[in-house]
Amino acid sequence: MSSLPVVPQPAPHIAAVPATTPFVAPEELARRVGRSELLRLGANESAFGPSPRAIAAMRDAVARTSWYGDPESLELRAALAARHACRVDEIVVASGIDELMGLIVRAFCGPGDPCVATHGTYPTLFYHLNAYGARPEFAPPGPEGGIDPDGIVAAVRRSGAKLVYIANPDNPSGAFADRATLAALRAALPDDVLLFLDEAYADFVSRESLPADVIDPRTIRTRTFSKAYGMAGARIGYALASTEIIATFQKIRLHFGVNRTAQIGALASLEDDAFLRGVVAEVGRGREDYHALGARLGARTLPSSTNFVCFEVGTRAQAERMVELLLELGVFVRKPWAAPIDGFVRVTVGTAAEREAFAARFAEALELVREKATT
Amino acid sequence: MSSLPVVPQPAPHIAAVPATTPFVAPEELARRVGRSELLRLGANESAFGPSPRAIAAMRDAVARTSWYGDPESLELRAALAARHACRVDEIVVASGIDELMGLIVRAFCGPGDPCVATHGTYPTLFYHLNAYGARPEFAPPGPEGGIDPDGIVAAVRRSGAKLVYIANPDNPSGAFADRATLAALRAALPDDVLLFLDEAYADFVSRESLPADVIDPRTIRTRTFSKAYGMAGARIGYALASTEIIATFQKIRLHFGVNRTAQIGALASLEDDAFLRGVVAEVGRGREDYHALGARLGARTLPSSTNFVCFEVGTRAQAERMVELLLELGVFVRKPWAAPIDGFVRVTVGTAAEREAFAARFAEALELVREKATT
Repeated sequence: MSSLPVVPQPAPHIAAVPATTPFVAPEELARRVGRSELLRLGANESAFGPSPRAIAAMRDAVARTSWYGDPESLELRAALAARHACRVDEIVVASGIDELMGLIVRAFCGPGDPCVATHGTYPTLFYHLNAYGARPEFAPPGPEGGIDPDGIVAAVRRSGAKLVYIANPDNPSGAFADRATLAALRAALPDDVLLFLDEAYADFVSRESLPADVIDPRTIRTRTFSKAYGMAGARIGYALASTEIIATFQKIRLHFGVNRTAQIGALASLEDDAFLRGVVAEVGRGREDYHALGARLGARTLPSSTNFVCFEVGTRAQAERMVELLLELGVFVRKPWAAPIDGFVRVTVGTAAEREAFAARFAEALELVREKATT
Repeated sequence: MSSLPVVPQPAPHIAAVPATTPFVAPEELARRVGRSELLRLGANESAFGPSPRAIAAMRDAVARTSWYGDPESLELRAALAARHACRVDEIVVASGIDELMGLIVRAFCGPGDPCVATHGTYPTLFYHLNAYGARPEFAPPGPEGGIDPDGIVAAVRRSGAKLVYIANPDNPSGAFADRATLAALRAALPDDVLLFLDEAYADFVSRESLPADVIDPRTIRTRTFSKAYGMAGARIGYALASTEIIATFQKIRLHFGVNRTAQIGALASLEDDAFLRGVVAEVGRGREDYHALGARLGARTLPSSTNFVCFEVGTRAQAERMVELLLELGVFVRKPWAAPIDGFVRVTVGTAAEREAFAARFAEALELVREKATT
């Protein structure tokens, strides 16, 4: 009788975590279809790049890569504090919202604890909940994705959850809940419930429609340089919260996780408002193009407050087929994972040329999907 | 009677974590003494920068910061697998060894669990142990810092620890335990104990004296581009371990934490062996300079297998005073935190010009420290 060799084992709660891959990268997808690159419209990367000022600052910074970045990101936090009219110690900088999400779950949602989130929203939240042994308590989505405030309050009452996650604007639907809606929702939640507002796409929305820039001791808002600022590869984002909450993150966060060149690029980006306004305007034009394309092809589109638009393809299986067909045609898109919008594909706004290239391939693929449906 | 407002609270085990700052950054230290910058010899950053090839590759990459990096770092891992004669799925890439350290503690050392480490070694380990609710079980240091293998085995027996941490070469002492010593230690540890070898400074040691490049199912080795490769600000490092252990990290790690430009720079670095050899040779000359300086000033130095050297100042208080005096003179150094080497200061090897500048200021400060001791 043979016996297995004794080797070190992870803690049981880690061993119990299911193996999942949050996202398959476009590089890997390209390899699968034998292409060297794809038209990247699947990860909501900015087609308009970083600000030229940020590029110049980062190029200059690269030779000093031998120096650690400032673990406190003080210069950047000072600039962000001025922008949001808050204190430096009401801000923490991290390697993107994904890292902040992990920290928030780790600090505010223990093993076995529920976290209320809308079924269908940004899946990385659920990845972190699983990885920390917490559990999702789903609120129903709105009629076209996005949130159902009453459903969220009901899920909190039902589960006793102390953490609520809302992506606003929402990914993957593109839906947006305005200042008044969120204020009413916050007021309806118990005081000991932490509201985690993931505002990755907030730069595409007017400041007046977003929650006011006032630090609420019961709310964490996260922002990123990955979307409108065009710095997804830099991995840099931040959270706005009370000094008490930020002090909690200071006790457990990775202090040397943020790339130095990213810190410098983010700071330069903040000083280039004209560039940001230009990106937001062009993204608005791109959304209009996509809505017009959908109307022309008879593929319903969802309203979007982000840099992507969801196109209706048909059934879930048809939308999955569409993702595959587009991949074969060299286009990387993703699709919402849950009803009522799992028959849609989500397409990032590209440059005008990329939008045209997408339009042609989408029309071609749509014909194939519909052909198959009728035969 | 007034009552405190109800606000969300972190999980009790997180609330219980003491507030600590792993390291005060040189930027902050410079602010404290009213200087715009310091001679940075305190964080073991490379004075020789990244490889020119890496700089060129990173400069070129910056304009594409709008793209996410490959979450699997496949190209880089393929190059590393070739270098270490192992499989791609025996490697995980992360934002430096600090991030890997957090992952290892999280996966292999649950709340309340002991982890054996040498008293006095790299303090970030203890930061992560605290932050995850685990606890250090100290092994005694060697006579001049570094490890005491028998003491480690005894601490494991005493505590039942399933995780052992060794920085090798050690920081802050610079001591090195060779292949035979580590093989004997591994053999003396129970099979279910995971040995975590932090090899941040391994590039300064000959390959033959390091543990052989064979994946051991009971050992994790971590490496970084921060030291000899001169890319501390990039935040990129990796772990070598069994496919089972790497698969465990895949279930819980931050998949999009690594900067894209850093991935590209690291890959370019690996292709520039001549540069690395040059850095290692110059660091060797710098250590000799420091040993000669210590001999000239009557300040004993410790043998070092790294890019830093420890100089004896006197008592712990005197060494603390030395750090302050050097800071006032515009020089950033740090000091070992524990006996038997807490009367030393740790000084990174700078360029020849930086070494000269340091020598003058160290001589000046040493005189002040000694003067005070005799009055």
